[in-house]
Amino acid sequence: MTFRERVQEVSQRQQSRLVIGLDTDRERIPEFLLGEKNPLVAFNRLVIEATRDLVIGYKPNFAFYEAEGAVGWEALEQTVDCIPGTLLSIADAKRGDISHTAAAYARAVFDTMNFNAVTLNPYMGRDVITPFEEYPGKGLILLALTSNPGAADFQMTDFNDTPLFERVIDRINAWNLSGDLAAVTGATHPEQLERIRHLAPDLPLLIPGIGAQGGDLRRTLAAVLPTPQSPVMINVSRGIIYAGSGQNFQDQVRQKAREYRDNINGIIAELHAG
Amino acid sequence: MTFRERVQEVSQRQQSRLVIGLDTDRERIPEFLLGEKNPLVAFNRLVIEATRDLVIGYKPNFAFYEAEGAVGWEALEQTVDCIPGTLLSIADAKRGDISHTAAAYARAVFDTMNFNAVTLNPYMGRDVITPFEEYPGKGLILLALTSNPGAADFQMTDFNDTPLFERVIDRINAWNLSGDLAAVTGATHPEQLERIRHLAPDLPLLIPGIGAQGGDLRRTLAAVLPTPQSPVMINVSRGIIYAGSGQNFQDQVRQKAREYRDNINGIIAELHAG
Repeated sequence: MTFRERVQEVSQRQQSRLVIGLDTDRERIPEFLLGEKNPLVAFNRLVIEATRDLVIGYKPNFAFYEAEGAVGWEALEQTVDCIPGTLLSIADAKRGDISHTAAAYARAVFDTMNFNAVTLNPYMGRDVITPFEEYPGKGLILLALTSNPGAADFQMTDFNDTPLFERVIDRINAWNLSGDLAAVTGATHPEQLERIRHLAPDLPLLIPGIGAQGGDLRRTLAAVLPTPQSPVMINVSRGIIYAGSGQNFQDQVRQKAREYRDNINGIIAELHAG
Repeated sequence: MTFRERVQEVSQRQQSRLVIGLDTDRERIPEFLLGEKNPLVAFNRLVIEATRDLVIGYKPNFAFYEAEGAVGWEALEQTVDCIPGTLLSIADAKRGDISHTAAAYARAVFDTMNFNAVTLNPYMGRDVITPFEEYPGKGLILLALTSNPGAADFQMTDFNDTPLFERVIDRINAWNLSGDLAAVTGATHPEQLERIRHLAPDLPLLIPGIGAQGGDLRRTLAAVLPTPQSPVMINVSRGIIYAGSGQNFQDQVRQKAREYRDNINGIIAELHAG
């Protein structure tokens, strides 16, 4: 099964588009978990338990684990094992290197750990993805247009009348013989999302920027879901995982995840009604 | 001391421009080390012992450590501690993220570990470096023009008659109020290196692509060293660290490092003679 098919299959089966970003920060998890052997894993396990029927997958953000050193890396390894194999597990690592180095990064996420997708940075070009293609069916999600203000510095600057992010999408289309490529496209740029969906009608899009970053959910979904089957992964991190801080934080996390899922599904139903 | 000053000071003191890249791969280190508690650390320690008077610093390439999982991450932490504090220790991580995530990556390399520089990917723009600037004096080395064929896909494509890598150099100049920014510029593009040095006469340049990748050392040095004080870091990885495989591999590693250092110094002396 290609990664595109997998995204579509999981979305259909789970009746959801929601990915929960595990930006798990020791400073922000409920205090009662700090006594656990590995607090980051304990927290992630409880978040996953509370939400696994509501989502299509989880996206651990490597930075937060690396900040803890080797113990954090262990937490990352154990977190992947907590993510049900029937869901997406996305390594949000934004790696972008070449040759032997890229091959070692690929081993880290797909052999040493068992993620089924990874985020990659396209700056170094085609060579970035080549070693990752040795793992058919694994999703390779390239940054195209990100949700931060700095996206204006390079991504949105014109290359002879075409902004860089459009060139990236164009290259992804050309390189995507496997059906395993996908793109990160931020919810803070709805007009550009329409353009991206026009250029790449079937490409799975991973969309951050809803929630904490304030992207407009309705405009975003209208742009990227021309059909109800269009492959889309809406990521929300802090807006869900830090919904509560007491002993009952799991209830609040579940409540918030359900709200996001229902909101997304409600808007999609309206968009495609009749 | 700014990072630029530090590069100049170390180069002057060590009479060298050479950085050794620690692309330490379990498959390629001498077999007799595989019985050590942590073979990667044992190897790195011996390489550093054999070469510390010949170089300006070391550049562990994160991918090779991550491929080993949490044990590899421990090896990375212990490797930084083996690098003399009087030399450069460059985290070749090519991180490129924003906000809380970038702040966590900065904590990983500058707090949890004690690197004095890091490589960063500029695709996400100004926001990538902001959290790293909280560590004055640490070097922030942005990818500009890399040594691989895929550099042609985006970096060398024209933005209204200016290639992307020139725009990146232009932005680095504008952002470099601290004197802590630097750029990665590959030795496989000598003409473009001249252009980069013209645009950024004082910017420290980290130059891979000599050695295994076949860049021309003389043309490269002529391009990036308009004066003998121009801050330049020439990286060689596999060409040095895998120079030997037996019990006496340290001698062969030392020999190879000395050849590179002397070659570089000889060419610089010729370029600036009279």
